[in-house]
Amino acid sequence: MFAGALDIGGTKTIVAIVNKDGSILSKRKIKTEIIDYKVHFLNCIKLLDECLNEISIKRSDLIGLGINLPGMVNSSLGLLYNAPYAGWKDVKVTDFFHWNTKIKNIYIENDVNSCALGEMYFGETSDNFLWITISTGIGGAIVVNKNLIKGSSFCAGEIGHMKVEYESPYKCSCGQYGCLEAHASGTALTRMFKELIQRDADYRNKLTEFKLCPDASGMAYLAKHNDENCIEIFKLCGTYIGRALSNAINLLNPKEIFLGGGVIDSYALIIGEINLQIRQNTVKKCSEVNIKPTALGYEAALLGSAALVFTNEN
Amino acid sequence: MFAGALDIGGTKTIVAIVNKDGSILSKRKIKTEIIDYKVHFLNCIKLLDECLNEISIKRSDLIGLGINLPGMVNSSLGLLYNAPYAGWKDVKVTDFFHWNTKIKNIYIENDVNSCALGEMYFGETSDNFLWITISTGIGGAIVVNKNLIKGSSFCAGEIGHMKVEYESPYKCSCGQYGCLEAHASGTALTRMFKELIQRDADYRNKLTEFKLCPDASGMAYLAKHNDENCIEIFKLCGTYIGRALSNAINLLNPKEIFLGGGVIDSYALIIGEINLQIRQNTVKKCSEVNIKPTALGYEAALLGSAALVFTNEN
Repeated sequence: MFAGALDIGGTKTIVAIVNKDGSILSKRKIKTEIIDYKVHFLNCIKLLDECLNEISIKRSDLIGLGINLPGMVNSSLGLLYNAPYAGWKDVKVTDFFHWNTKIKNIYIENDVNSCALGEMYFGETSDNFLWITISTGIGGAIVVNKNLIKGSSFCAGEIGHMKVEYESPYKCSCGQYGCLEAHASGTALTRMFKELIQRDADYRNKLTEFKLCPDASGMAYLAKHNDENCIEIFKLCGTYIGRALSNAINLLNPKEIFLGGGVIDSYALIIGEINLQIRQNTVKKCSEVNIKPTALGYEAALLGSAALVFTNEN
Repeated sequence: MFAGALDIGGTKTIVAIVNKDGSILSKRKIKTEIIDYKVHFLNCIKLLDECLNEISIKRSDLIGLGINLPGMVNSSLGLLYNAPYAGWKDVKVTDFFHWNTKIKNIYIENDVNSCALGEMYFGETSDNFLWITISTGIGGAIVVNKNLIKGSSFCAGEIGHMKVEYESPYKCSCGQYGCLEAHASGTALTRMFKELIQRDADYRNKLTEFKLCPDASGMAYLAKHNDENCIEIFKLCGTYIGRALSNAINLLNPKEIFLGGGVIDSYALIIGEINLQIRQNTVKKCSEVNIKPTALGYEAALLGSAALVFTNEN
């Protein structure tokens, strides 16, 4: 059984064919063309056909097409309300793809929600868990009794904008202050690394010596090689993530929290502080929660879009 | 249609007969006898019979008995896992009352969850809302698509232990620091009022002059009579409540939040700051949430225990 899988992010899009055990049989990656969603969606369909050709199957062999979108989605109406980064609003995504592919079973979902569905379908989860993406930005999905919590206006799970710093808050890209995203995302880590580089000439030399980028990945390299300043920054990031997770745990009492996004690379650098915060900040009876990296790795969102199909067509 | 209603709190218990429109037909109130739950439960049954006699009906006229308990409840098993204040553990509540009353339909629930069910049954709610009790302590209930969120170990909704102050946190009765309950409960307000009284002899004179208690209610009296220090303390309390509600809104995107408990008395003194915090701290698309006092007033929990019966027997 094959599913078409489209993971449309704010900056890049992945198109793939995935089978029922989660193997990615063919795959293409392009930049997300935000100027005109129609142009971009048609490009996606072209790439989907390339993927199908590569493994010698036809559109009609797909049991369905799952599509992740980077914004607020009403999956039952097939509607993208708003994708802030791309600037797309009120797009009838399901209709568009149905019309242009003739594929009958098309499912759309917010990208982080898809990750949670992917973890549930391809990984091992309990009935009550959270899925948190920590990448350029930070987003969350909530699963209760195996169902996604969507919220009254389809925007539940905004843990990235939970406030974790009231005394010395940074401004977030959303315009507010002290958001988790402003203190612990890849963007925040890069900002803190750049501040360190500016303060200390040693780091400018290290960048050259080890051929590092002045971003979160460069800092992770140094932290893993025992640079104490970089280790401290990751610990701070873990503290903020731990504060937000503690709030979510006290409220929702999940059994597990899966972490995905670029942060998985630096999991060992932050998990100690995350667990410390959880011990200090959650009520005892809620604190037996497992924090773990996603089992789906970098392809979590793509596998999530395939899971949309398999979950619905089972 | 009549329901037996038992609202068993940590310190007091109310026993009543309630009819389907939410009228309380007869009512008794006693101290909760925490030493021995069996003695207390048998006392409750005696009072229930007094209530029945008062309105000349029999146990068999009740369509069921709803029981609130101050702790972690597994309502499907009829089991109270733990009531921390009373010190009761692993009590088969439903079996006990069934055995001793022969009433067939018996329902038990955590007291704050019951408030939410009461609001849904007797008040006007949407499908997605939160119910927050702000009293001696602070507790919360979460309703999503008309269902209570219980959590993986029956302790979801612990908003009272969400951390709202990291820089100058007070110690909470739970042993942790910076909990909402330590900064904005009736207990916290009383503590702040007592500090004010100790600092300033004027307040000692005011207590005598207006015959006030040195607690949250005494402070509310002065605040309502334009005492600026007292007004500021209530505002601070509103700020902390607003921080916690903002976190919950970003995570759950509810349509409404109902506030109950003693705080309703001082609603006008805190709602301005609560709304300010929500404007500053929630993502725009989630911020259209109505904060309102419960429509059920002081009897919210008692009506909630009756709602357990009517909801299940409808």
